[in-house]
Parts: sequence; C-alpha cells; structure tokens
Amino acid sequence: MTQIARFITVEGLEGAGKTTVLNAIEAQLRTAGIDLVTTREPGGTPLGEEVRALLLGHKHDGMADDTELLLMFAARAEHLHRVIRPALAAGRWVLCDRFTDATYAYQGGGRGIDMARIATLEDFVQGDLRPHHTFLLDLPVRQGLDRAAGRSEPDRFEKQREAFFDAARATYRARAESEPGRFRVIDASQDLDGVLAQLKTSVAALLAEVGP
Amino acid sequence: MTQIARFITVEGLEGAGKTTVLNAIEAQLRTAGIDLVTTREPGGTPLGEEVRALLLGHKHDGMADDTELLLMFAARAEHLHRVIRPALAAGRWVLCDRFTDATYAYQGGGRGIDMARIATLEDFVQGDLRPHHTFLLDLPVRQGLDRAAGRSEPDRFEKQREAFFDAARATYRARAESEPGRFRVIDASQDLDGVLAQLKTSVAALLAEVGP
Repeated sequence: MTQIARFITVEGLEGAGKTTVLNAIEAQLRTAGIDLVTTREPGGTPLGEEVRALLLGHKHDGMADDTELLLMFAARAEHLHRVIRPALAAGRWVLCDRFTDATYAYQGGGRGIDMARIATLEDFVQGDLRPHHTFLLDLPVRQGLDRAAGRSEPDRFEKQREAFFDAARATYRARAESEPGRFRVIDASQDLDGVLAQLKTSVAALLAEVGP
Repeated sequence: MTQIARFITVEGLEGAGKTTVLNAIEAQLRTAGIDLVTTREPGGTPLGEEVRALLLGHKHDGMADDTELLLMFAARAEHLHRVIRPALAAGRWVLCDRFTDATYAYQGGGRGIDMARIATLEDFVQGDLRPHHTFLLDLPVRQGLDRAAGRSEPDRFEKQREAFFDAARATYRARAESEPGRFRVIDASQDLDGVLAQLKTSVAALLAEVGP
C-alpha cells in the first residue's frame, strides 16, 4: 500500500466512547499495514504534560482567557514539533486523541472565548497543517454524562455542566457541518456494536481513498 | 499632580546596572508623589513564575521556538491581566523590569526567532498597549559581561555569549532608533554618577511632560 501519511483525530464529549473508538481505529489501520503513531492532547510530550498540570492547577484562580489559550497552544506547538510533524514527514500516520477542534468546542463554545482568537493561534502554530480526517463521536449531552458518571438525576452543578457541554457539542457539530470533507460524524448514541460497525465502514472508506 | 497613569519599562543587557536604575527611578517618582507599582518580567505572577521555571527547565532539550514564544507570552498575558492593566486602570503608574522589547532583543535578535512572529503575539496579547516610556541602558557587550562576571579574559563559551548579546544589543538599539518618542537611551558605559545624573534629568522631563 502506498503510504500517504494521514493525520487523523478523534473528537467527542465525555462518555462518547472515545477510548474504545481509538482502539478500534488503531486495530483496523494496523491490520491494513499502516505504520501508525498514536498520541493525545493535551500532553503528548513531557513539556506538554507539565503545561497540562499548570492549566489544571490554576483553573480556578481566574487565569486570563489569553493565558489559557496561549498555554494550550504552547503545548500543541511542542507536540507538533516533537511528535506529529516528524511522524508525518517520515510517512507515518498519526492518530491523535483530540486536537484543535476540542479547543474550539471547550474553550470557544463552552467557555465563550472568542473563536477568532483561537483561529489566530491555530494559524500561528499549525500554519497550513490540519487533520486530514476527524471522527466526531456525537451523542446527546445527557446521555454522555450519564454514561460517564453512571448517574441519572442531574444536580445544580450537573445542570451547569450540561449547559457547558451543550455549547461544546453545538460547536463540534457546526464545525463538522462546515467541513464535511474532513469530518466523519459517528452516531455515538447507538449501542457499541452499531458504533463499531459505522466506524469500520468509515475507516475502510478512508483506506480505500488513500488507495492500494 | 494630575495622575495620568504611565507604563514605564527598563531594558538592558546583563551588567548594565538595571537594578540600580530601577531603584533610582522608583525613588524619584515616589518623591514626586506618584502612586507606583513595581514589577518584573518574566514572572510577576505565581503562574508566571511557574512558566519561567518551565522555560528554564526545558531550555536545553530543544524546545520549539514557537513553544518558547507562546510560553513567554502566556506569562505576559497573565501579568497584564493581574498586575499591569488593573494598576493602569486604577490610575497607578507601573514600573516594569523588562517587557516585550526584551523578547525582541533576546529571542528575536539573540536566538534568531522571526521578529514578525513575535509581533503577532505582541499584538495578540497586548492589543494596543505598549509602554509609554522605555529606558534603555546601553553599553558595550564586553563591558557589561565583565561587570556582571568580574572577569576579563573571555573563554570560548563567553565568545559565543558575546555574539548572542551583540545581536541582542543591536536589536535594542534599532528599536530605540525606530521609536525615539518612547525610548530614552541611557549611556550605561559611564560611571554610576554619570548614569544617575542622565537618568534624573530624563525622569524629570518625563514628569514635566505629564504636568503638574
């Protein structure tokens, strides 16, 4: 098979089944003989993990929006420099658990940070580089939270989180609609067999696209 | 005296006498009844100090240029958000030990990072905010290094450092030339009495400008 290196990301809210899906994609690609690097955001490098700790440690003391964005993109710049770009340059595929779409969804949609400012840093750090394919695991927020927490009655904090995640989901869906060539939306509200069947077809189509 | 809040920075290479000058400016402004906040970069906030440690800790393992720049401006965003903008908004003056000119001089001139990329992040983080007055302590690099280290014969490492500092000094001087309204260049090769006399006149002129 010709190795046309692809950069694939998987996006989705809590409880969407991201880990299961990442494992299934990885298995299918490796079976097809693809030389693959798997990685994740935020993090993916030692410095990225430290930045992540810094973000979490200062989350509640009113860090400026700009600070948060710049730290996230600093970790991303290092991740691109050390992991993603070298792999693609060597003809290897990259499968990444979340990427910049998550920044738009969570910081932009969820937290209300100006999308144009996110776009400025995306261009600054990534240049022309965007994922070639993005699997978006979409499901109703309530269903995802229930799955993640094993709980059914939302309290006041849960309600707040729901509004946050509603905005994040809406952002994810809007991005998928505006870039239908890049996004594959997987209906994650189905049972697992249904999800994996839809995914398998989608990955097979992607492999067929790249060609033998 | 009318309080027209001013944002003043002091820039200069190692051994230029920055600390002495900062103390002298502070004393002269306070004597004139100015309500003053003194601060420094990088750092100036708890998060900024952590970012600073992160920068120093990863200095030698090939951190990407973009990562370094984004981390520096993340710390600066927090510094602006927590210290500088609130002080200016309250009518207080701010006296800061180094600011974005140092990023141009050290990362741009010294390390060769693209000045246009620094300018992009400067605009992103600062918007229209620039220091009103910048005192640049200028002196020959060798003289500064000798003063800082108390040494006279440069070894090979010192020679490398000299080339780095030459580029940083050239950048500082070019910036001062292109913004004569903002910069006050102090000849730091003079003896201390000379420096302090030149400084005193310059600060007095600044106070006269703002008016009684």
